[in-house]
Amino acid sequence: MTPDERTVSELGELGVVDLVTSYLPPPPTGELWSGDDAAVVAGTLVTTDTMVEGEDFDLSYCSGFDLGWKLVAVNASDVAAMAGTPRHAVATLAFRPSTPVELVDGIARGMAEAAGRWGVALVGGDLSAAPLLVASLTMIGEPGPRVVTRDGARPGDRVVVTGTIGGSWGGLKLLRAGRGDEAPALVERHLRPQARVEEGRRLGELGATSMIDVSDGFAVDLTRLMRASRTGCAVDPAAVPLHPALDVLGETDVLKGAILGGEDFELLATLPPGAEAPEGVTIVGEVTKDTALRFGDDDLEELGRSHGWDHLRGR
Amino acid sequence: MTPDERTVSELGELGVVDLVTSYLPPPPTGELWSGDDAAVVAGTLVTTDTMVEGEDFDLSYCSGFDLGWKLVAVNASDVAAMAGTPRHAVATLAFRPSTPVELVDGIARGMAEAAGRWGVALVGGDLSAAPLLVASLTMIGEPGPRVVTRDGARPGDRVVVTGTIGGSWGGLKLLRAGRGDEAPALVERHLRPQARVEEGRRLGELGATSMIDVSDGFAVDLTRLMRASRTGCAVDPAAVPLHPALDVLGETDVLKGAILGGEDFELLATLPPGAEAPEGVTIVGEVTKDTALRFGDDDLEELGRSHGWDHLRGR
Repeated sequence: MTPDERTVSELGELGVVDLVTSYLPPPPTGELWSGDDAAVVAGTLVTTDTMVEGEDFDLSYCSGFDLGWKLVAVNASDVAAMAGTPRHAVATLAFRPSTPVELVDGIARGMAEAAGRWGVALVGGDLSAAPLLVASLTMIGEPGPRVVTRDGARPGDRVVVTGTIGGSWGGLKLLRAGRGDEAPALVERHLRPQARVEEGRRLGELGATSMIDVSDGFAVDLTRLMRASRTGCAVDPAAVPLHPALDVLGETDVLKGAILGGEDFELLATLPPGAEAPEGVTIVGEVTKDTALRFGDDDLEELGRSHGWDHLRGR
Repeated sequence: MTPDERTVSELGELGVVDLVTSYLPPPPTGELWSGDDAAVVAGTLVTTDTMVEGEDFDLSYCSGFDLGWKLVAVNASDVAAMAGTPRHAVATLAFRPSTPVELVDGIARGMAEAAGRWGVALVGGDLSAAPLLVASLTMIGEPGPRVVTRDGARPGDRVVVTGTIGGSWGGLKLLRAGRGDEAPALVERHLRPQARVEEGRRLGELGATSMIDVSDGFAVDLTRLMRASRTGCAVDPAAVPLHPALDVLGETDVLKGAILGGEDFELLATLPPGAEAPEGVTIVGEVTKDTALRFGDDDLEELGRSHGWDHLRGR
């Protein structure tokens, strides 16, 4: 056997996930391991997320409080996307020994406040030294009466999304341009995301057939949802609920930026034909039997492929 | 309020833990959050551990397989120290995009093999890019009939330890000196630690009153056990089961090196006066009412304080 001389950037995230899982046995009946927002095992939901300085956040515009808040929120969002309720979390923090106590104090306060917001108990963790700040959190959640996975969408279902799209993208754009003051609402969407826990449970109760949270962008995540379900969709671009403050950006194609930008942490779901979208949830299209991913005249997967984020490929 | 101008190295690990937990509510009755080997919540044990390149491992003598194995083993060891059984794990890996696929392949194989060894299902994870390799794992375990915490030792109990002490310290010393070939058994103790899961359960069945795993060294961890229990101890230095291959080092004070070196991942426990130590478990001393920590004529806490490891203080 010749040694594999490739690097992980050539494999990409999905390739690495496939490599790791190739050594693992398949899950027993009734359990769901990798491939969804959270794993389903022994009556619990488990998910984990890591944030690396310079890669996932930038301390020049993100405070310790923001980081701590976001670490809890993004994991709660994964539990919400299974229609579950976040319950317990453990966090690991690695930082330089020269890190100011104030920064760690901020992270602690942000984690505690977000934990309180979603009723999560932070029950433990681990500290380590590192040449840069790395924060990781594992969330354990309680499933609802029905666990909603990514693979259950059926032709005829309605495609729905909670809240608004693009706020986080707009906020990040402003922060990077030093224009954060122009739209605090967008900045807040980026730095202090909300996990849609109540909405996720409600969508589960309404019979949602599939669900995912919008972490890598509306286009990429809706593509994932449809691919997992082996269905297609027809989305009406005019129906996508854009964040109302995005006009501040003064861009010509705000819609494209919004659906390609990540970290909205809204929920994308499919509801059976009869169900009505509850308040704060917008119908944006329909699930189709043919597997084309229509976004008006564009193809969602094509759009996402050119702009979606792969940590390991650096784009 | 004047801003806190200290750095985390001035606070140390315990100081940072105190800071973080100061913002959290106390655990409800029946739950145990931080302060032990694992948290006890909702009928499960939860623990997490992070390994940072250059800080916790060195890829010049540690393979990807070693790293993956150790990541699972050290977390299983924490569950073992509560007399529990490890069941499920999620892992997060952050690495350079230029990382060879072979290294990640090794990590995956090491994790899978250790997971198989202890019957753990690796059910999910997260990938990220970072300028150095950071691996983090959260383990969920099943408690036994009795959860054994750190704070239950009583005067008159026997202090016992599983297996042998000092092997990991000796192995690391040889590896760093490029002398690993001289004692593969010691090197294996450092690179492929064993979690004492069966032994932990057995000690729980025998009525162990307190238990901890030896991760930061026999001296430091026995000090922690006694302080948590508000007891002292009298340990017979001659009774400490040193790893038989340590003679290879040719050192004059192997015993001191062994009790101060970390990462043995053996279990230190206290058994009630009537209980007999099972096979592979050695009685090394007795729990005392006065809180002195006698190690022959030495004081265990003093020994540990001068040599114990604090990630954030860098010693």
